Amino acid sequence: MFRTIDWDGSDVVAIDQTLLPDRTVMLHLHEVEELAHAIRTLQIRGAMGLGVAGGLGLALAIRRAQERGADPVRAAEAAATVLGATRPTAANLFWGIEHVRQFLAQDVEAAVDAAVRLIDADVVANRALAESGADLLAELCAVTDGPLAIMTHCNAGALAAVEVGTALGVIGALEARGLVREVLVCETRPLLQGARLTCWELTRMEIPCSLIVDSAAAGLVARGRVDAIVVGADRIAANGDVANKVGTFSHALAARHAGIPFIVAAPESTVDLACPDGAAIPIEERAAEEVLGFAGIRTAPRSVGALNPAFDVTPAGLVTAIVTERRVIRTGRGERPSQLRHGDEETVVEEETLVEEQR
Amino acid sequence: MFRTIDWDGSDVVAIDQTLLPDRTVMLHLHEVEELAHAIRTLQIRGAMGLGVAGGLGLALAIRRAQERGADPVRAAEAAATVLGATRPTAANLFWGIEHVRQFLAQDVEAAVDAAVRLIDADVVANRALAESGADLLAELCAVTDGPLAIMTHCNAGALAAVEVGTALGVIGALEARGLVREVLVCETRPLLQGARLTCWELTRMEIPCSLIVDSAAAGLVARGRVDAIVVGADRIAANGDVANKVGTFSHALAARHAGIPFIVAAPESTVDLACPDGAAIPIEERAAEEVLGFAGIRTAPRSVGALNPAFDVTPAGLVTAIVTERRVIRTGRGERPSQLRHGDEETVVEEETLVEEQR
Repeated sequence: MFRTIDWDGSDVVAIDQTLLPDRTVMLHLHEVEELAHAIRTLQIRGAMGLGVAGGLGLALAIRRAQERGADPVRAAEAAATVLGATRPTAANLFWGIEHVRQFLAQDVEAAVDAAVRLIDADVVANRALAESGADLLAELCAVTDGPLAIMTHCNAGALAAVEVGTALGVIGALEARGLVREVLVCETRPLLQGARLTCWELTRMEIPCSLIVDSAAAGLVARGRVDAIVVGADRIAANGDVANKVGTFSHALAARHAGIPFIVAAPESTVDLACPDGAAIPIEERAAEEVLGFAGIRTAPRSVGALNPAFDVTPAGLVTAIVTERRVIRTGRGERPSQLRHGDEETVVEEETLVEEQR
Repeated sequence: MFRTIDWDGSDVVAIDQTLLPDRTVMLHLHEVEELAHAIRTLQIRGAMGLGVAGGLGLALAIRRAQERGADPVRAAEAAATVLGATRPTAANLFWGIEHVRQFLAQDVEAAVDAAVRLIDADVVANRALAESGADLLAELCAVTDGPLAIMTHCNAGALAAVEVGTALGVIGALEARGLVREVLVCETRPLLQGARLTCWELTRMEIPCSLIVDSAAAGLVARGRVDAIVVGADRIAANGDVANKVGTFSHALAARHAGIPFIVAAPESTVDLACPDGAAIPIEERAAEEVLGFAGIRTAPRSVGALNPAFDVTPAGLVTAIVTERRVIRTGRGERPSQLRHGDEETVVEEETLVEEQR
C-alpha cells in the first residue's frame, strides 16, 4: 500500500492521476497555486483525497509564509479562498479546509498538525467504512449463491483517498471474505476515471474486473449480471440526496428497476448538513472540450457545443443505504443523515481515538 | 438532401459513416463481401439503412452472378446468408433480405426491382413517420410554453436510413413547425454515433444542438432541461419491448422518473412479430477493443477485459409510444404492436401506393 497523497514535512506529495494507468509519477507540490492547479486539472481528485489536499494546502501556505517571513495566518486564509474555488461540488474539500482553518486562531503549528493528522484519520475512517460496507452487502445480497458481481462508477478507491478508498474499500473488504466474483467498472466519461483509475486499482488488488461503457450499465443490471452497485459521493445533503460523478443517478434508477441494492460509501465529512437537499448542491460545469473530443482528437463537428455537468444528484429514495465510517443510514427505509448530528470536531476526535487504538 | 445509400444500376453507393464528420467519402461497393464488410465495420449502419443494404446486397449478388455466368438465384441465396450474419440484432436487415428473397422464385429481375424500390419506399415511410411523430409530440408536450428541448441517442437520422430518418425525421418535422428550441445529443459510446453523426446531421439541418456524455442524460432530464426523448429502434418485439443502441434503456428510466414522454420512432419493418418479447431478442456483443480504448489509444490497463453489448432492451412499459409510418402504438397505455398485424407484402404495397401518390 502506498499513499496517493502525503506530506513530506514541507511539500504535498501526490500521484499524478492524469498520467495513470500508463505512468506512475509523483507530484511534489511546493506552492499553494501548484496544488490548486493540480486539483483543478484532476491530477489530485476524489472526495477524501480532496479533503486531505484542502487541509494540507493550508499547511503548505503556512510553511511557505514562514520561510519567506510573511504572515502565515494571512497566507493560510488566502490559500483557503484559492483552494475553495477549485471544485465547487466537493464537500470534503471545504471540510478539509475548514477543519484546518479553525486551528489558525489558536496556533499555526496546531493547524499544520491538524492537516497532517487528516492523512491518518482518513485511512482509519476508510478501513472502518470498508468493513461496515462489506457487512451490509453480505446482509443485503444472496451471498449463499456464491460470490457477488459488484458494479461501480468513477473512482472511489485509494486514489480518491489516501489509502483503501470508500466504494473500492468496501469491495476490497468483501473480496477479503471471498465474496467477490467480479467487478463491473463503468468507464466514466468524459474523463474515464473508471477505465484509467479504478481498473488500475482493481488490477493491483488482483480482483477480476471488466470495463463497460457507462450506458451499458442499465442493460447489464436488468439482465441479472450485477448483484449490487457501490459508489462514492462528493456531497450528501441532510435529506440523503447524493451528489456524485455524473452517471451515478442512472445507475441508481437501474438498480431500483432491477431491485438490487444501491450503496453509497462515503466518509462523514461528505455529509453536508447545511445543505437541505440535492437541489441546493452546486453542480460543477466543466469545459465543453472534455466532451467534444478525446486525447486532443475532436470527435464532434467544429460548430457544435456541449454541456458538461461533472456531477448529478441521486435522490435519497433511490439509495438503499449510505455507509460512513460511523454509521449505516438506511435511506431506503426513510432514515436521513440529519437524524444523527455530527460536528466536525466530534468526528475527528473519534477518528483520532481510532488511530490511537490501532497503534 | 442526398441519399446516404443508393443503387447506381450496378453497385451499392453509400456514405462511409466511420469517416464522418471529418470526411464525406462515398463507398462504391461492387461485391457482396465488400458490402458485408461495410456493414460489419459500421461504414453502413442504422435500422432502415441496413434494411435497404440487405435488400440491395441480393441485387448486387444477382448482377455479379449474371456478369460471371453463374447462377444468380444461388448467388443471391448465398448473399442472404452472408449478410444476415453481419448484425444479429438488426430486424430491418433480415426484413430487407427476406423481402427481396421472396421474389427470387419468381424472377431475378423482379428481385432486383424489389430491392431498388426499397430505397424510395424508405424515404416515403420516413416522411409519413416524421409528421406523425411531430403530431404526437405536439400533443404530449406543453408546446404552449414555447419550443421544446428534445433529447436523442445514437443516430436515427438520414444516415440511419436513406433520407429523412426516424427520430431525427420527427425532430426535423417538429422544427419545421417552429417547435424545437434545442436538441441534446447523447454522444453514444463506444462508437460515438451521436457525437459524430447526429451532430453532423443536425448542423446540416441548422437545428441548435448540444452534445452530452451519455451518462449526463438522466441528471439533465431530472433538472427539467429536456421536454421529451425520441430515439430509433433496431428491433421491436410483439409485446412492444424495444431493442436499440446500448444506453437507450437508461434514458427511458430517466424519462419515466421525470414524467416526460419517451418516444420510439421506427418503421414497421423494425417490428418483429415472431419475437414475443425483449428476452428473445439476440443482443450483439461487439469487440472489447471498442471500449478499452479510443481512436487507437488504449485507456484501460493492458490486463483488463471489457463487456460490449451493442444494444439494450427497453421494456414496453417504459415507452410512451412507438411511432411507425402507419400507426402510433400507445405502449404507455398498454397497446401492443401485435394488436395490429402487419405482413411484409401488405406494408410494401401500401408504401408503393404512397410513392405513387406523391408523384
